[in-house]
Amino acid sequence: MDNFDNLHYAPHTKPGKQRQNSKFLLKLIRSHVTSVITSRRDDPDMHTLSSHWLLRISAVRWCLALAEDKYPTRSRCISLLHRDLPGEEMANSDRADTAIAFVYRGTFVHSTQQKALQILKDALLGVDTQGKIAFIEEGKELEKLSQTFGFKTSDITQLAQHEFFMPGLVDTHIHASQYSYAGTALDMPLLQWLNAYTFPVESRFKDLEFARKVYTQIVRRTLRNGTTTACYFATIHTEASLLLGQIANNFGQRALVGKVCMDRNDCVKHYKETLQDSQDETCRFIKELLNKKYPLVKPVVTPRFAPSCTGALLEQLGEIAKNNNLHIQSHISETLEEVKLVKELFPESESYADVYYKHNLLTDKTVMAHGCHLSDEELALFRETGASLSHCPNSNFSLCSGVLNVRNVLKHKVKLGLGTDVAGGYSASMLDAVRRALDASKVLTIQDPKYKTLSFEEVFRIATLGGSQALSLDDQTGNFEVGKDFDALRINVAAEGGPIDLIQDEEPKILLEKFLNLGDDRNIAEVFVAGRKVVPITE
Amino acid sequence: MDNFDNLHYAPHTKPGKQRQNSKFLLKLIRSHVTSVITSRRDDPDMHTLSSHWLLRISAVRWCLALAEDKYPTRSRCISLLHRDLPGEEMANSDRADTAIAFVYRGTFVHSTQQKALQILKDALLGVDTQGKIAFIEEGKELEKLSQTFGFKTSDITQLAQHEFFMPGLVDTHIHASQYSYAGTALDMPLLQWLNAYTFPVESRFKDLEFARKVYTQIVRRTLRNGTTTACYFATIHTEASLLLGQIANNFGQRALVGKVCMDRNDCVKHYKETLQDSQDETCRFIKELLNKKYPLVKPVVTPRFAPSCTGALLEQLGEIAKNNNLHIQSHISETLEEVKLVKELFPESESYADVYYKHNLLTDKTVMAHGCHLSDEELALFRETGASLSHCPNSNFSLCSGVLNVRNVLKHKVKLGLGTDVAGGYSASMLDAVRRALDASKVLTIQDPKYKTLSFEEVFRIATLGGSQALSLDDQTGNFEVGKDFDALRINVAAEGGPIDLIQDEEPKILLEKFLNLGDDRNIAEVFVAGRKVVPITE
Repeated sequence: MDNFDNLHYAPHTKPGKQRQNSKFLLKLIRSHVTSVITSRRDDPDMHTLSSHWLLRISAVRWCLALAEDKYPTRSRCISLLHRDLPGEEMANSDRADTAIAFVYRGTFVHSTQQKALQILKDALLGVDTQGKIAFIEEGKELEKLSQTFGFKTSDITQLAQHEFFMPGLVDTHIHASQYSYAGTALDMPLLQWLNAYTFPVESRFKDLEFARKVYTQIVRRTLRNGTTTACYFATIHTEASLLLGQIANNFGQRALVGKVCMDRNDCVKHYKETLQDSQDETCRFIKELLNKKYPLVKPVVTPRFAPSCTGALLEQLGEIAKNNNLHIQSHISETLEEVKLVKELFPESESYADVYYKHNLLTDKTVMAHGCHLSDEELALFRETGASLSHCPNSNFSLCSGVLNVRNVLKHKVKLGLGTDVAGGYSASMLDAVRRALDASKVLTIQDPKYKTLSFEEVFRIATLGGSQALSLDDQTGNFEVGKDFDALRINVAAEGGPIDLIQDEEPKILLEKFLNLGDDRNIAEVFVAGRKVVPITE
Repeated sequence: MDNFDNLHYAPHTKPGKQRQNSKFLLKLIRSHVTSVITSRRDDPDMHTLSSHWLLRISAVRWCLALAEDKYPTRSRCISLLHRDLPGEEMANSDRADTAIAFVYRGTFVHSTQQKALQILKDALLGVDTQGKIAFIEEGKELEKLSQTFGFKTSDITQLAQHEFFMPGLVDTHIHASQYSYAGTALDMPLLQWLNAYTFPVESRFKDLEFARKVYTQIVRRTLRNGTTTACYFATIHTEASLLLGQIANNFGQRALVGKVCMDRNDCVKHYKETLQDSQDETCRFIKELLNKKYPLVKPVVTPRFAPSCTGALLEQLGEIAKNNNLHIQSHISETLEEVKLVKELFPESESYADVYYKHNLLTDKTVMAHGCHLSDEELALFRETGASLSHCPNSNFSLCSGVLNVRNVLKHKVKLGLGTDVAGGYSASMLDAVRRALDASKVLTIQDPKYKTLSFEEVFRIATLGGSQALSLDDQTGNFEVGKDFDALRINVAAEGGPIDLIQDEEPKILLEKFLNLGDDRNIAEVFVAGRKVVPITE
């Protein structure tokens, strides 16, 4: 059993310094709790009380974090808060139950910055009506929690021995528009592949009915596969791209949706835009998507990749992203042939990464797919700008693009997530991405036995917390930290008719490893995004 | 639409020579058909007529093959036969319907020696009561076939547009006894892995109830996954190994079952045999398994691998296999560390392959797993002896063992099948083996862009026909050649609730590729072994 104290970043400060901080923090906490209690008394709408209170807890945690330059342990935070709550207040907090939507009890596994895999057995996790994680505590704290958060113990759902919750999977790079030919057309390298298969299919998305079919399929499929957050490429078509956003919103998936921008395409001439169109339509797409006010679906500025864009377009897109504080996605250094081509097309740039950097497209909200052939200098530029990489190993194998040295990316402290890269990657399942990431790492060990293979725990983190960081969404999702949205998969390793056989009861770590290696959607009993149960899918 | 003439090996002789042969063959056929007709008149049991007749067709085909040193085309064979059958006989052949058990109409895909992928659209395939393929013909031949083979056209089962039949998958290397920890324990290289995980688990198989649980699970699982033929490693325990044979027989799987032999084990001392025990128990295992007279389950002589066996044991096992004309299986050159160890243990041998060769363990009924690090000289020895290799790419990745150069194996004309190698390979699905074989080939292309990547069609052949050849069972299974057992998978690419989305009707080649890359057991609607429907599994 892990110590719950590890749920958040542990303070790394020395004991003496810590004591000093504690006194200061206690003062801070007292003032916060006082204001919480005041707000509870004054608030005419009792329904909002608990979330108010949670906001305050969150604020306290942030104060602690700022003061120590680290997150404090959760149990210290909670105990400090409780010390300040008068007994009377605690006893009267039963009205807060309206704010807790549901509570699960059982095994939870997730990642933190310190631990690639943290296993919490017999834990209690409560989700509030805003879909946020209200608490995650040891089962023995039940009485205290039910009083504090005002839920009935009979309302708790108990997981079975072979079940656990894990954070939702984050697909940091997927071409929704390429799903129709997923699992086929993997017989040529990238640049030829784009011309032969991709551009002809993508050009069909001016037909909204075709778009609706494919986009509905891919959103349903990825949700069933446990992808709670997806960073999508659509096509150059604004209407179809807006439709993808609508479909993701309807099914309840957290998504970044990108209308593809490309004003250069020598091979499939009808599949490109003019510079002006690309700029205008991008602005329209962003404006219209934001106007929908979908809570979980946001636009992402999407130059296809440098070879498909003129410098002028890249510059305008960098400008648009900057002015609207938007996410950015593109591809980088997927194949050596492409790297060479970029060098020819942008002779004034020092490197592929420099092309994007010069056009303000490397920001802390940028995610670039692949990066197999990035130099250490380019990785340093990623680190410096806060830009992240999406590792798409299935695609890299399937198109013979290269093998990303993940260990080197991590060494450079570049944020890293996993991507399926449908349809260069044939699978729309992040479980496949996890497996292929392990394979890719093992290939590097085969080539050089001194290479430190990634552990399955590390890849698990990259697929969840890492993905949320790569998309700069880790304040909202990625693990089971209190205050984040409840994006989660309820895994049943022994699902009836499923792909996994258990011969005996197994420890959670074994159950997780079996699921990651052998599981599929049949093992994903329920999927939650921001507290809403989106799988099983109800029509 | 493929030409049905390609169903068998096409004659490669020159036209002049062919004409000469044809006259001679016609004479042969006439005498055969006469004897067929005679046997039909004389046979009191009309039920056996058709199979008699089929035997004769088979005999004719063999005569043709011998005469030309090639298989003739099927259509020529049929037309020659029909020319000799009096019309009256043809018309009266309706009583033969008792011999045809069932007929399917639709798309069939399989491999031949000439074509890695042959697609037969709107084909008719009939299976006789012995479970053998009686005919496979174009749909337009329906009337003629129903008369010849005596079945009613209303008895035909029509496949849907998104369905097809393919040959059963042949798993040429799988450790049934390691299934309980499949999907876990992949964090160390082979020799350490054996000591840490494998030997402790395998030693548990003296407990027959444990064995029954695990062996029932693996046989059911592999059948559901479409493995119609499996070449199993059990453990050193005779009773449990016999039980595996019994379970495979009960579920109707074609299997080679090996009681493991090992009289050397320094690390897990209680998991080994004495030389005498290993010899005695192997003989008892073989005798008792053969005495069961299971139609599809046979024993295979199974020295674990050279490092686990003394030279004396290897010699005795070679003797036993030779005296009883038995199959042999073992491991070879999986990792560089192991190759080095074998060199130390058998200093008198020129190579790893030579160790087995010297002990009469390389025969045309031998299958050796892995071979990642075999030299060209060793491959030549395989070719010379007729021994085959089982390529187990998942295992080779998972244990960081190496990457087999399949193109080089094929260049050396060494028979090659695919294996899951559970639990060094984590998946008990041959579909995974297909995917990983493609990955392994693509890794070699990434390393050297001039390396000719395997096509999915080639890997499909290795997984089916190739496997049957590697196990020297290609006279019985591997493709849809007339006279072979009907080992087949009915694939429904659009299975309800399955893993594949189709946006539109697709050609069979696309359907096959989607199934190989994206499919799972949900797409395998029916599995047949020797004409018996073994999936869905009936308890």
